[in-house]
Amino acid sequence: MFAPVYLDWNATTPLHPSVREAMLPWLDTRFGNASSRHEYGRQARAAIDEARARVAAAVGAHPTEVVFTSGGSEANNLFIKGAAAWLKPALVAISAIEHPCVREPARQLVRGGWTLHEIAVDAAGRVDEIDWCATLERRPTLVSVMLANNETGVLQDVAAMAADARQAGAFLHTDAVQALGKMAVDFRRLGVHAMTLSAHKVGGPLGAGALVLDKRLELAPLIAGGGQERGLRSGTENVAAIVGFGVACELAVAAHEDEAERLRRLQAEIETVLVDCGARIFSDGAPRLPNTTFFALPGLDGETLVAKLDRAGFACASGSACSSANPEPSHTLLSMGVAPDLARNAVRVSLGRTTTTNDISSFLAAFEKVTKTLKNLTAMAV
Amino acid sequence: MFAPVYLDWNATTPLHPSVREAMLPWLDTRFGNASSRHEYGRQARAAIDEARARVAAAVGAHPTEVVFTSGGSEANNLFIKGAAAWLKPALVAISAIEHPCVREPARQLVRGGWTLHEIAVDAAGRVDEIDWCATLERRPTLVSVMLANNETGVLQDVAAMAADARQAGAFLHTDAVQALGKMAVDFRRLGVHAMTLSAHKVGGPLGAGALVLDKRLELAPLIAGGGQERGLRSGTENVAAIVGFGVACELAVAAHEDEAERLRRLQAEIETVLVDCGARIFSDGAPRLPNTTFFALPGLDGETLVAKLDRAGFACASGSACSSANPEPSHTLLSMGVAPDLARNAVRVSLGRTTTTNDISSFLAAFEKVTKTLKNLTAMAV
Repeated sequence: MFAPVYLDWNATTPLHPSVREAMLPWLDTRFGNASSRHEYGRQARAAIDEARARVAAAVGAHPTEVVFTSGGSEANNLFIKGAAAWLKPALVAISAIEHPCVREPARQLVRGGWTLHEIAVDAAGRVDEIDWCATLERRPTLVSVMLANNETGVLQDVAAMAADARQAGAFLHTDAVQALGKMAVDFRRLGVHAMTLSAHKVGGPLGAGALVLDKRLELAPLIAGGGQERGLRSGTENVAAIVGFGVACELAVAAHEDEAERLRRLQAEIETVLVDCGARIFSDGAPRLPNTTFFALPGLDGETLVAKLDRAGFACASGSACSSANPEPSHTLLSMGVAPDLARNAVRVSLGRTTTTNDISSFLAAFEKVTKTLKNLTAMAV
Repeated sequence: MFAPVYLDWNATTPLHPSVREAMLPWLDTRFGNASSRHEYGRQARAAIDEARARVAAAVGAHPTEVVFTSGGSEANNLFIKGAAAWLKPALVAISAIEHPCVREPARQLVRGGWTLHEIAVDAAGRVDEIDWCATLERRPTLVSVMLANNETGVLQDVAAMAADARQAGAFLHTDAVQALGKMAVDFRRLGVHAMTLSAHKVGGPLGAGALVLDKRLELAPLIAGGGQERGLRSGTENVAAIVGFGVACELAVAAHEDEAERLRRLQAEIETVLVDCGARIFSDGAPRLPNTTFFALPGLDGETLVAKLDRAGFACASGSACSSANPEPSHTLLSMGVAPDLARNAVRVSLGRTTTTNDISSFLAAFEKVTKTLKNLTAMAV
């Protein structure tokens, strides 16, 4: 079977073999509804409890603070809309580079009388200090700033922001979906009120995520009904996915220090070659995830480059996978002041657990070959 | 391994072996994000398209009418809240015996200025004709009536109601989660505006469901973000679960006529013995699902009976599994005018694909033994 080299780990990740193994019994003889009072139900309930403890331990939270959802998008929507439902309409502030699943629910609040402010970022994609202070002076009620950006991999100093936000009387939420497993993520040390996690970004399955939530915060459920997850998320729990999520968190967090070091070396190798080829690496002056390289070759369309690399056997992304149904240039890059023409050239390479030195060597060889051909074609067309 | 006889198919079902087989590659080498433009992503997208066609074909809908969700609870919430968001607050009417994941979102609308009416049911659990007509005269905007009840299995004449509702200018939604695979379910013939389906009730996995939706109806998404599912449900699609859902629908619908006949015979066998033991069978005078028996033995607590049967190796439900974190007597039974004391005695036995004649014989033997012991204990206690 044709198996291209996978360099799109920020979009989704293959299941860790131990995660798959842990999930399989729950797709077989252990199929109970966790709300059922009989043997099948009790087994499912115990498995969910165990997974909740694993997820909590992986991020320094208490198990009762973990609300399982169907994924990161749901968790982000649950926080934004669920917290807003308990508050008087006021100011909601999000960084200008949030994932659409934070930005869109925040925009939906505007219809309900809220004011939305998108906090500016600098050219490297870091939240702008002056706008941050100005935003807090406007006394926002809800603030959301992601820990690591899905496209550039840029990190924000969320712990400092959480302290500021608390002092200003705001609730701070952080989308930690891309950070988990790639750097230390500790709910208590970050000091945020709420934090979003996703299983499928850390070697776990699609279909599970969590909102880690300070219990003093009241939320209205998005999905109301049977009262699962302390009434914050009804619906029969996806036992297999939750079990996989627990194991994936544990494994990803245990490995993250060694992995970060290994991936950082591969990242440096890639970026040296890219820069030699004339590429601009976005956010290269800022603290970034060790696995992510977001770059552009001036004059070479990103979609075209990704398509050529795909045919050469390498799976990369142009723009952000989750919103790539939408062919507009990256919102993150535009917010960083990147010209739309250059933003349209953007390509993301993101590495993970199974990425080898050989993968990177062969990718770089293919990249040089493909870009040379494309540049010649472009030159001929001119 | 200890494997009790599973008689709780309305709570959840084991995966059909062909469903599991269809899912496994998507938990292995085919792990792409369906929004990605490379080979992995295209494979995932194609699999989702195929599953959408299967689900649509199974229920007589067009593939573009199928909106995948994380399950039935989400689909019900999406319809109720999503449709309400586009409408002026008015009257929302639901049958008094809807699942909590219809009732609770409908109650949440009240905070937004809506009026909620719960349409009365008769002693058999069928929507009361007089209250139905009176409700329509009050010009509701949104109406939701389930096709088959999860506890009693009672069926409603949703096709006739949909015709009435259209004439009255209301949008009619039906929760067909329990009906699918147990009777003919045809979106077009029912004539409803929207219909909820769930994978894990028909031999498919937890983590997938659908709202089948007349495209002329505008809905605000519950989960906004990346724009998946025509913008009606953002979030990376759970490919394995959606693939399993497609196969499960196809298999369940293909088998439903033969299965219904087989299960109807087992149901009759069970109910003959139960009645001999002095049980009251709820909704026995009304059209019902062929697999469901909801009954009570006067004087014997339902929870106790279920616990004793569990220890004897038979998994049944008391009340409705999804809300059984809540030990109140069944809302459905109370709505039917059943006295709370008798409602507390309720036990549900629901059958499915792997239920055999032997399972039922041994269940009935165990039931007679357990109830005799319990009656003796009760008599001694008095």
